[in-house]
Amino acid sequence: MSTDRIGVLGSGDVGRALGSGFARHGWDVAVGSRDPGKLHDWRDDVGGSVADDGSVSVGSFADAAAHGDVAVLAVRGAAALDALDLAGHDNFAGTLLLDTTNPLDFSGGMPPHLLFGGTDSLGERIQSALPDAHVVKCFNTVSNAQMVDPEFEEGTPPMFICGDDADAKGRTEDILVELGWPGTMDVGDIESARHLEALVPLWVRVGSVMDTSEHAFKAVQ
Amino acid sequence: MSTDRIGVLGSGDVGRALGSGFARHGWDVAVGSRDPGKLHDWRDDVGGSVADDGSVSVGSFADAAAHGDVAVLAVRGAAALDALDLAGHDNFAGTLLLDTTNPLDFSGGMPPHLLFGGTDSLGERIQSALPDAHVVKCFNTVSNAQMVDPEFEEGTPPMFICGDDADAKGRTEDILVELGWPGTMDVGDIESARHLEALVPLWVRVGSVMDTSEHAFKAVQ
Repeated sequence: MSTDRIGVLGSGDVGRALGSGFARHGWDVAVGSRDPGKLHDWRDDVGGSVADDGSVSVGSFADAAAHGDVAVLAVRGAAALDALDLAGHDNFAGTLLLDTTNPLDFSGGMPPHLLFGGTDSLGERIQSALPDAHVVKCFNTVSNAQMVDPEFEEGTPPMFICGDDADAKGRTEDILVELGWPGTMDVGDIESARHLEALVPLWVRVGSVMDTSEHAFKAVQ
Repeated sequence: MSTDRIGVLGSGDVGRALGSGFARHGWDVAVGSRDPGKLHDWRDDVGGSVADDGSVSVGSFADAAAHGDVAVLAVRGAAALDALDLAGHDNFAGTLLLDTTNPLDFSGGMPPHLLFGGTDSLGERIQSALPDAHVVKCFNTVSNAQMVDPEFEEGTPPMFICGDDADAKGRTEDILVELGWPGTMDVGDIESARHLEALVPLWVRVGSVMDTSEHAFKAVQ
């Protein structure tokens, strides 16, 4: 069997991790960059970890796109479509393109927002409508069957919450512990409600795959 | 210590689950509805599970909002702000308001979309730019340090992917298994990229809380 070939478009942290990783697994990898010259030192560095039947070359985006029938798009989200243009759309006909990109906007500093979408939430609208209330987003990412006395075979994860008032979030955690939760994971001020609310369409789709509506997301490391 | 009092605005599945759950935990609960009369049978049904020091009453949204210094908003997302108006904004001054609502749009059937936000993604734009490629959203919800040969103390979760082509997703799963992943969780066609991409701002915030960037989300049940 011939060695599998893959093109990696992008030479940042993601492109380097995948380029060296596929080569370590014996793939013939072509990493593409706007400026391939800057990758020569990196290519020499990873040479030692490449599997016997693997290899790493560097070149242009077009070189990477044309390299095999599998490609990875690993550039900044804001640069994704430009990278496709530079690579040449014809080079992707029939290609399995693994798209790693995210439309993240770092212009406001960390943590990032989305370049499009994710600019509003009910949590924010509710806090705005009730400026004298302490709104805490809560319970919106779990099934109603699990809201009180939750039971998860793999252990109950902390509840994702957010809100502007620290005392209110502390009291929310006390309440949740009383209801059987191990605690909360506080993901920020009420603006973060846009992220907790955006989790729910994914939650529905995952439940469909798992054939349950009593699941929840847990951050693991 | 006096019994904690909580108002629950909304009498659907979420409102009933939380209303009966808080009462089971000894809280004095007032469930509010546009039409309190329809809740009398439910109130009688849950009576047997209420703790000795707990209670459940039913009334209007305003009754629920004024009942204690903790309230839960548990109505449909599209009805959330109307419910606050019906309850009277003054009734929420100083209140801890637990906001369970989600801006879900079921007008297109299941699974739901968001009423605002979540209407676009890089995955869709990339597939649209490359109609002859088979785009699979992949790797975008994990750290580059975990993309190849992942190591999670709590077990490596399946990779969330989506895309329009079943064969391409099958091949993606084969590739991921080769790279050390247990498999994939296929959350739908390329339109679901909007949900996988929207997960990333939350991923960043959760990483900040956990003091790591090598975490991932796992669906647990």
